[in-house]
Amino acid sequence: MPPDGTADAREEPIYDIAHLGHLELLTPKFDESLCFFVDVMGMTESGQAGSSVYLRGWDDYERYSLKLTASNTSGIGHMAFRTRSPQALQRRARALAGSGFEVGWSNGDLGQGPTFVCRDPDGHVIELYYETEWYAPPPELKPALKNQAQKFPARGVSVRRLDHLNCLAADIRANRVFFENYLGFRLTEQIVLDDGTEAGMWMTATNKSYDFAYTLDRTGSRGRFHHLTYAVDCREDVLRAADIFLENGVYIETGPHKHAVQQTFFLYVYEPGGNRVEVANAGARLILAPDWKPIVWSEAERKKGQAWGLKTIESFHTYGTPPV
Amino acid sequence: MPPDGTADAREEPIYDIAHLGHLELLTPKFDESLCFFVDVMGMTESGQAGSSVYLRGWDDYERYSLKLTASNTSGIGHMAFRTRSPQALQRRARALAGSGFEVGWSNGDLGQGPTFVCRDPDGHVIELYYETEWYAPPPELKPALKNQAQKFPARGVSVRRLDHLNCLAADIRANRVFFENYLGFRLTEQIVLDDGTEAGMWMTATNKSYDFAYTLDRTGSRGRFHHLTYAVDCREDVLRAADIFLENGVYIETGPHKHAVQQTFFLYVYEPGGNRVEVANAGARLILAPDWKPIVWSEAERKKGQAWGLKTIESFHTYGTPPV
Amino acid sequence: MPPDGTADAREEPIYDIAHLGHLELLTPKFDESLCFFVDVMGMTESGQAGSSVYLRGWDDYERYSLKLTASNTSGIGHMAFRTRSPQALQRRARALAGSGFEVGWSNGDLGQGPTFVCRDPDGHVIELYYETEWYAPPPELKPALKNQAQKFPARGVSVRRLDHLNCLAADIRANRVFFENYLGFRLTEQIVLDDGTEAGMWMTATNKSYDFAYTLDRTGSRGRFHHLTYAVDCREDVLRAADIFLENGVYIETGPHKHAVQQTFFLYVYEPGGNRVEVANAGARLILAPDWKPIVWSEAERKKGQAWGLKTIESFHTYGTPPV
Amino acid sequence: MPPDGTADAREEPIYDIAHLGHLELLTPKFDESLCFFVDVMGMTESGQAGSSVYLRGWDDYERYSLKLTASNTSGIGHMAFRTRSPQALQRRARALAGSGFEVGWSNGDLGQGPTFVCRDPDGHVIELYYETEWYAPPPELKPALKNQAQKFPARGVSVRRLDHLNCLAADIRANRVFFENYLGFRLTEQIVLDDGTEAGMWMTATNKSYDFAYTLDRTGSRGRFHHLTYAVDCREDVLRAADIFLENGVYIETGPHKHAVQQTFFLYVYEPGGNRVEVANAGARLILAPDWKPIVWSEAERKKGQAWGLKTIESFHTYGTPPV
Repeated sequence: MPPDGTADAREEPIYDIAHLGHLELLTPKFDESLCFFVDVMGMTESGQAGSSVYLRGWDDYERYSLKLTASNTSGIGHMAFRTRSPQALQRRARALAGSGFEVGWSNGDLGQGPTFVCRDPDGHVIELYYETEWYAPPPELKPALKNQAQKFPARGVSVRRLDHLNCLAADIRANRVFFENYLGFRLTEQIVLDDGTEAGMWMTATNKSYDFAYTLDRTGSRGRFHHLTYAVDCREDVLRAADIFLENGVYIETGPHKHAVQQTFFLYVYEPGGNRVEVANAGARLILAPDWKPIVWSEAERKKGQAWGLKTIESFHTYGTPPV
Repeated sequence: MPPDGTADAREEPIYDIAHLGHLELLTPKFDESLCFFVDVMGMTESGQAGSSVYLRGWDDYERYSLKLTASNTSGIGHMAFRTRSPQALQRRARALAGSGFEVGWSNGDLGQGPTFVCRDPDGHVIELYYETEWYAPPPELKPALKNQAQKFPARGVSVRRLDHLNCLAADIRANRVFFENYLGFRLTEQIVLDDGTEAGMWMTATNKSYDFAYTLDRTGSRGRFHHLTYAVDCREDVLRAADIFLENGVYIETGPHKHAVQQTFFLYVYEPGGNRVEVANAGARLILAPDWKPIVWSEAERKKGQAWGLKTIESFHTYGTPPV
Repeated sequence: MPPDGTADAREEPIYDIAHLGHLELLTPKFDESLCFFVDVMGMTESGQAGSSVYLRGWDDYERYSLKLTASNTSGIGHMAFRTRSPQALQRRARALAGSGFEVGWSNGDLGQGPTFVCRDPDGHVIELYYETEWYAPPPELKPALKNQAQKFPARGVSVRRLDHLNCLAADIRANRVFFENYLGFRLTEQIVLDDGTEAGMWMTATNKSYDFAYTLDRTGSRGRFHHLTYAVDCREDVLRAADIFLENGVYIETGPHKHAVQQTFFLYVYEPGGNRVEVANAGARLILAPDWKPIVWSEAERKKGQAWGLKTIESFHTYGTPPV
Repeated sequence: MPPDGTADAREEPIYDIAHLGHLELLTPKFDESLCFFVDVMGMTESGQAGSSVYLRGWDDYERYSLKLTASNTSGIGHMAFRTRSPQALQRRARALAGSGFEVGWSNGDLGQGPTFVCRDPDGHVIELYYETEWYAPPPELKPALKNQAQKFPARGVSVRRLDHLNCLAADIRANRVFFENYLGFRLTEQIVLDDGTEAGMWMTATNKSYDFAYTLDRTGSRGRFHHLTYAVDCREDVLRAADIFLENGVYIETGPHKHAVQQTFFLYVYEPGGNRVEVANAGARLILAPDWKPIVWSEAERKKGQAWGLKTIESFHTYGTPPV
């Protein structure tokens, strides 16, 4: 691969990653966090092991999309991507071998087959796996329509599926090159400061316009987490979520409003363990072009605030987990 | 490839098709059809050639997604799929060469590079291309946000993008095997009658749950068309579309209602040339699993009607274009 | 008052009725009906007495809007209207005295002061009252905003407030004249058959376009009930309600669709006791004109079906409670 | 009437005002303002006289709800309320006679009968009228449904109807007492500062939770205007309006967001003439209680910002028209 991370025009893209499968979230207030995800977000508990509970949105096809783990801190344990085939998993493992980023094979997690573990340049742990357990609902959670994973809960926000996550990192460019070269993610939008520093990146392996984002950590810390996002169907669902968070005493940091970047209709809250959680509409905007040219936002453009003029709240630039 | 169309488990999927690019629609009432698409659907004219006008939704990234052609009949001229790379186009051309389905290379259409043409087993014309012209809006149609193809029109239904099309065919199974083996589409849902006849199929090359559907033509005709679908953002947009169609004297065949199959929230109308046009929400439901197991609907299940109990209107089973 | 029920142009309207307060619903399957209203409709239990449970939507300002009573049949026990003042209650009682429709004063119901009872020409029981108990939520149901009666439940359909009811009657005209002359309701829309028979009426005492409707009972029975309606905020909420009813095995009779009459976006289901229940959007359309001229729908117009062309389902014309 | 404006409990309310009919808006940029209201707001021109154009939303039943007048400044010309009957108009005129607030009878405006003019304590001009011209659409604007005033335009924001207006005033209490005593408006919510100063009031003559608001003018000026509001059906319509304003270069001051006061889902922009215009959902929340107890917001409560935590933008407190 070219050393600068620019894909050779003659070379075909890598299609080995299927999608973001789940992430592990750490919380120092396990019981309150669990209540938040089950009662307020409307998620379903689908497993337990050690000091973790596994949770899911009603449209997640795998057994879980969130592993909530009791810890003495907040932040992210790991993120996990499913590959498109067993061969794809082997190819990614081979590509990472000797790269300095690999950790090695593990036996995987609940319902998850052989797993290759690595770290991004900022130190976040990444799991790659193919074998997975499809969710099999108990009788009381069987859906009316057979093309749906689980009965719609109609409880709290009733989030549909895991949509994306956002990490903080000290060197965005290094992380972009890592995800492009080793995992085949495509950059769809980015922020580039006047001095050329890459300050934010949005990458995808699917037709969603991003499966994750990384933004600059100005504290000099490593491996920190910005937020995870669950999808609902439409903007009205996000507004209703705001009503529900308000009624349940959940701290709303900012939103609902529309990001200029990616045009996501966002709402950010803090779960009781201190991690930032987003509810967003997802799906209306798809990137179908196989040769999408990344959108580059300048410092001046970012200073304009969000799409409809809302000024970005200061904590959005400074707050991550674990706190420093 | 295995003769029965079942992909060998050891073999990896084909990822050569990026997405449905456009279709050509024939109309015997050109002026009225054009008014319908521009004034009522809210589409933008982006080209003219011969007896055709090229049209687009505001979020279509290519120059156009609909070629409307004056004709002495209604129906579909062709459908066109963009490949993921130039190499992918060559691979598909090679796979089709000598298959009996190929027509051969053409110079393409407006803004479209070298094109390989073939026919499905029912005779519908299919174009494959990679090179394409990205839409460059004139000043008055420049969007406020640089990650959007065109200014939101706020005129009529204001459809977002081409979503899918639906053809009629005499032999669904033959068409399924064709699309699986030669083009790498994946089946996500299908209807199988009690006698084993495949009566409907929904296939995708993307994370959308389908890029096209084929349903059984009970008239014995070949190459007929059922409908094309433009996407809007949410179900409320579909309801608003119904209000707009009502106000503009457009014939509403059925809906808005929710299909059990694919859970599409649908609304079907006839454009002045007689072709069926659907407006649907699109995007909330994505197929992220690379190994999705097709959902099979039985005769008994289909007889239950649509998701919320609406009986399927008779003309939906019988009416296609051109009429027979 | 003029004998034909036409208000004298020189005379000013009566403004004595404030709004529909509640209704009593009879059910032969009390436990299942209660589960339906609490778990599926998302209502809150706010009282109990004898064989009745009192229920409310989260935005009903009075203690309850539905009295659910165990019975050996289905149907309506009574409807209750709140007057605008104590004097207004006295005026209505005086107007009804000696009319043949009065039943007399009662001590009222749970949280309800002195009540004047009468019957409409079809025999339905009507209660008039002014004193009422405002809902005082227990601590766990206190809302975040002080201008709201109760915390938003985010459970099931989460209906907002009682909107209207619909009775069946043998003589619509007689009932219209009764409600105009004795209670001051205004007719906003009606159905008049080709032979001059009034077949449906929609009347209001508020800026809502109707507080109740009466439609023709073709069975020759008296005092029967067609449906009660709870309001949600928008059409998307009605669609979501359809999803929730489907998931919970509730029989959906027809909808969601838009009535031509009153433009209500409707969804009709049967609760376990057999009574028809509607969920509708409510509020967008207001009648502000103090001299609104009633809209008259002819037989031919009604035969066109609902607003977007849905044919009216046969049971909608024939099914009422109690069944005959 | 009691001098302090508190209605005597033994006395019945006044029901003489039906609703806000229209307002006259002054603009120093007439052509641009007209384009804004027609092309962006989606309103319909329904009359012309002198240097004014008359405009309407598609659900306004009267001929117009906005009189746009070329002027050398911005601000409000007058507001006009329709009474419930000719007698009600006479009663209000008699009550105002000799009050010091009356201006006297005028011949009314386009399509408007005899009009009694007065001024509120802050000097804003108020017209009272009963006779009015109902809107009669030209053939191309005839609606499909006969219970609707005009064809839905499907152009720009496509506002439904005039909802309310907001004036600035030096003495809120004086204005409240004026509207209660002379016109019979009811207070539904208010802001009272720690020192007892009334700083905002929301009043209604309908089941809408307010027909107008007055807020404190901190500049010491008189007769200034804060904003006018057009209603759309649901919150998604307000979000769509934000998209449309963004695309059309309209300055968005704040929103969309939810007010804690009245729970209005708001979006504020400036029209080209400098006047603040709001688009809001309207109708879901109704005040049905005839004896609604006004909600009083304290200084501390107001400092919390809007419902979901948005801090109130400074210009919202300071900017009015005409500018000072």
